[in-house]
Amino acid sequence: MPTPISQLGEFGLINHLTQNVFLVNKSSIKGIGDDGAVIDNRDKLTVVSTDLLAEGIHFDLMYSPLKHLGYKAVVVNLSDIYAMNATPRQIMVSMALSSRFPVEALEELYEGILTACRLYKVDLVGGDTSSSRSGLFLSLTAIGDAHPDEIVYRNTAKVGDLICVSGNLGAAYLGLQLLEREKQLFLEDSNIAPDLENQNYLVGRQLKPEARYDIIALLKRHNIQPSAMIDVSDGLSSDLLHICHQSKVGCRIFEDDIPLHPDTYQMAFKFNIIPSVCALSGGEDYELLFTVSPDRLAELEDMEAITIIGKIVPEEEGCKMITPSNNEHTLIAQGWNHMNN
Amino acid sequence: MPTPISQLGEFGLINHLTQNVFLVNKSSIKGIGDDGAVIDNRDKLTVVSTDLLAEGIHFDLMYSPLKHLGYKAVVVNLSDIYAMNATPRQIMVSMALSSRFPVEALEELYEGILTACRLYKVDLVGGDTSSSRSGLFLSLTAIGDAHPDEIVYRNTAKVGDLICVSGNLGAAYLGLQLLEREKQLFLEDSNIAPDLENQNYLVGRQLKPEARYDIIALLKRHNIQPSAMIDVSDGLSSDLLHICHQSKVGCRIFEDDIPLHPDTYQMAFKFNIIPSVCALSGGEDYELLFTVSPDRLAELEDMEAITIIGKIVPEEEGCKMITPSNNEHTLIAQGWNHMNN
Repeated sequence: MPTPISQLGEFGLINHLTQNVFLVNKSSIKGIGDDGAVIDNRDKLTVVSTDLLAEGIHFDLMYSPLKHLGYKAVVVNLSDIYAMNATPRQIMVSMALSSRFPVEALEELYEGILTACRLYKVDLVGGDTSSSRSGLFLSLTAIGDAHPDEIVYRNTAKVGDLICVSGNLGAAYLGLQLLEREKQLFLEDSNIAPDLENQNYLVGRQLKPEARYDIIALLKRHNIQPSAMIDVSDGLSSDLLHICHQSKVGCRIFEDDIPLHPDTYQMAFKFNIIPSVCALSGGEDYELLFTVSPDRLAELEDMEAITIIGKIVPEEEGCKMITPSNNEHTLIAQGWNHMNN
Repeated sequence: MPTPISQLGEFGLINHLTQNVFLVNKSSIKGIGDDGAVIDNRDKLTVVSTDLLAEGIHFDLMYSPLKHLGYKAVVVNLSDIYAMNATPRQIMVSMALSSRFPVEALEELYEGILTACRLYKVDLVGGDTSSSRSGLFLSLTAIGDAHPDEIVYRNTAKVGDLICVSGNLGAAYLGLQLLEREKQLFLEDSNIAPDLENQNYLVGRQLKPEARYDIIALLKRHNIQPSAMIDVSDGLSSDLLHICHQSKVGCRIFEDDIPLHPDTYQMAFKFNIIPSVCALSGGEDYELLFTVSPDRLAELEDMEAITIIGKIVPEEEGCKMITPSNNEHTLIAQGWNHMNN
């Protein structure tokens, strides 16, 4: 039988959920259990990022298992630290939840959180737990470090730089469309079993994304320091515009060069969406989008996990995508429109 | 006419709300506008704390003006950093809000946030903004620093130490009771004007608390390092038990020595509550509760803002309050029971 949270109380609940939390980073001096966490960062800069996830806006518990949600919440937050070219060390997790969640549901959520912590070698060092009148809210803060000359901002792209992206884009968006479609069918007729077989890749990209620390490590091994960087959370268009606007530059990207997974192509056609639009406006890919000096072209071309999709141009030339038929489309920010709900 | 948030969009909204944010701390290297904030902390330890406030649980917008709410959200978070004997330097603010909030409402909220930032000299360095299906949620993370030998934990109280508390306790709880009473009367008959005159002190303690950096400064001037410290957010009883349990000690406090404001006395009697119960179980006072070596007794007795309420005893003697008639009551944790909602 599910255990109501009220049976444990706040402190009992926190103790119960955090009993398996052990600190692994030398810089984690004090974790859960005091007014704050204490972090030793003597020779480095501290990098901090925070994300808030709201039920019905960022996730739907009808198709997002709590374990996956916990995992994704951590990954999304760490992705921001990597996008600064820093290494995440600690994380704090706050949540507000309505009484419909039993203790077992939170155990699942924490299992996902702690799995991500172990994999990415970050310490859970604190948080806050509260109830909400309705729905589940998760707020995470990640703390990382970097040497002062390692940190990469968004506002430092230079004219002539190559625009690069890791992995492929647009799959997470189509994974969401698939999950939404099956949900609607299920709501209309609960006898219909979800038809998500063979869609593991797209659905996995939506439900269980990874943060690209491997790309950060790859670039470091090759001694390549990006001139500007961001993670693709709102869609290529919106995130590239962040780099361009903050760096006071323009860009040209080539539609044909945007990396798409074969499943993304196929499913985009099934949904009657232009595949590149999934990449441009979809978001939630958590790939790294970065600019690099053109002298590193040859090395970057050899890296399978990285695709060069265009270059930085002077601001007055605008931010545009070139189609295979040589048409120019001005990029527009479209990613985030939760506020229209 | 109120401006719907959808008119600005996420990025427009963030720009609009943060246009008056200027960084004042030397350690704030990068603030809002990138994947993360960057903080320089080379010679010190970093202290981080986070709090989540949910509408209908931690605040009621019927009587909590948004400006006060923003102010209080910051103060509550900074209070945790002071309770570690550290100095807050930066803050990150995330919020999820339903579409019923126009831009003007958020401006008010931010006005309160920024007023607190200015007064406490902390930099707003980032956050996340999202919508929620219902209600307003605020999640704040405060970052501070301290020299390694300055930090005060909860688990380091020693047998024989004096138990001290700043200011007075219980007023915030009665302020809440007053606001709740007036709300009920108003809901029954909207012609009744709220009768809160002469209750400025109690209502103010609830709606606009302050964090006791003056106490931290006072103790530093006298070179007094508390052996353990916590801020009183859940009530004296619950917070003192945190110190005792984590330090593996017991305590004796004297009911007669618990500092209460005259208005707290009066109103407790009106509500037919034992005054000390407001202090023991009320919470939200944000005073500092700390233990100090008994050699500092004389100096502490001279400090008007600090009251000695008891002493630390061996664990096996338990945690008890002594009444004026010399009865012993075992302290029980009562503060936080939001989960029972």
